[in-house]
Amino acid sequence: MNVRGDRAFISGHGPQNSDGSPAGPFGAVGDTVSVEEAKASARKVGLAMLGSLKRELGSLDRITGWCRVLGMVNCAPRFANPPAVISGFTELILEVFGPEVGRHSRSAIGVAGLPLNFPVEIGAEVLISA
Amino acid sequence: MNVRGDRAFISGHGPQNSDGSPAGPFGAVGDTVSVEEAKASARKVGLAMLGSLKRELGSLDRITGWCRVLGMVNCAPRFANPPAVISGFTELILEVFGPEVGRHSRSAIGVAGLPLNFPVEIGAEVLISA
Amino acid sequence: MNVRGDRAFISGHGPQNSDGSPAGPFGAVGDTVSVEEAKASARKVGLAMLGSLKRELGSLDRITGWCRVLGMVNCAPRFANPPAVISGFTELILEVFGPEVGRHSRSAIGVAGLPLNFPVEIGAEVLISA
Repeated sequence: MNVRGDRAFISGHGPQNSDGSPAGPFGAVGDTVSVEEAKASARKVGLAMLGSLKRELGSLDRITGWCRVLGMVNCAPRFANPPAVISGFTELILEVFGPEVGRHSRSAIGVAGLPLNFPVEIGAEVLISA
Repeated sequence: MNVRGDRAFISGHGPQNSDGSPAGPFGAVGDTVSVEEAKASARKVGLAMLGSLKRELGSLDRITGWCRVLGMVNCAPRFANPPAVISGFTELILEVFGPEVGRHSRSAIGVAGLPLNFPVEIGAEVLISA
Repeated sequence: MNVRGDRAFISGHGPQNSDGSPAGPFGAVGDTVSVEEAKASARKVGLAMLGSLKRELGSLDRITGWCRVLGMVNCAPRFANPPAVISGFTELILEVFGPEVGRHSRSAIGVAGLPLNFPVEIGAEVLISA
C-alpha cells in the first residue's frame, strides 16, 4: 500500500484468513485448485485488501473511486478463464462500494507462479480524498 | 473502461472482429499460433480498444496522451519475443495518434493463460481532456 | 519511459551491463537460473532503470515518490517465490531514495516468457516534480 497524492497504489494481495495468515487452498487452478475455490480465494483477497486500505486510510469512505485492477491467476498452461476467478474480487468490491465508486478497469491473466503458491493475487489502484 | 478524473483506465482487451465478436486464431504463440498471426491479433486488440474509447469518450480527440500499456502474450514456456507480438498494437497507436500523443511506456510479457484462450490481451491507461 | 504530467511511466526493463547491453544469465528461475542470480539481475534492472530516469528527467532529484512496481519473473511453473527475486530491485530503490521517496506498492509474479529470455523484467510508475 502506497499513498501518493490522490492515489493509493495497492500491492499484490493474496487471500488471507481473518487473522491475517495466508489462506489456502494453495496451488494452481486447473491443477489442484478448482475455479470455484479460486473464486472464493479472490473474494478473500478483496477482504484482505479492504483491511489494508482501512488501516492505511483510516476509513474506506476516503475511497472516491476504484481505478484499475490486475488479477493474476496461478494456473496450468492454457487455462482460458481467469475472469471467472477474478470475478470473486470484483463482486465483493461492487457489493461494498456500489457501481459508481466500485467500478474498475480490469485485466485478468494466468501466470506461471505466485508468492506462497497462492492460486490468485490481485493488485489495484484507487482514487482517494484527503 | 473506467474514466476517473483526467485518466481513462482501459481493461484488458482481446482481439475482436468488426462486429465485436472474439477474433481468432485462439491458442498460444509458439504452439498453435505464429508470431505473425499474434502480431495481427494485437493490431485487432488496438482497433477494439479504439472502439471502446470512442464509445466511452465520444471522440478520440479527447485523448491527450497515451501513458502505459501492459501487453500479455499467451505463450509456450520460454517464448522470448513478446515485444514482436505487442508491436502490432504499438504500431497502430502510433499511426493513429502520432508520436507525441501516441508514445507509451510498455511491458510485454508471456503469460500462461488468457480469457477465451486469446493469443494476446492488452490493457492501458490514457490521459484525457474534459 | 514516458512522462505525462506529474508522472513518469517506465517501460519494462531487463537487466543491463554498464555499457547498456543485455546482461545474463538468461533463462528461467528454477530451471537454469538460481534465485540468487535472478535477485542480482533484479538489482541490475534497477540500475538500468535509474539510468533511463536520469537521461529522461535530467536528475533523479526530480523523483518525488515511487508509486508502483510490477515485477515479472521468468520461471518454471509453480515457482512460489517471485518476491525473493524482485527484492533485489526494491532494496536498491530504498538504498538510493530512502524509505519516504522510495517506498512503492509491488506485485511480484511468475511469467511464462520474457524478452530475450531475461530472468526478470520490471516496470514502474513514479511521481515527478517539474
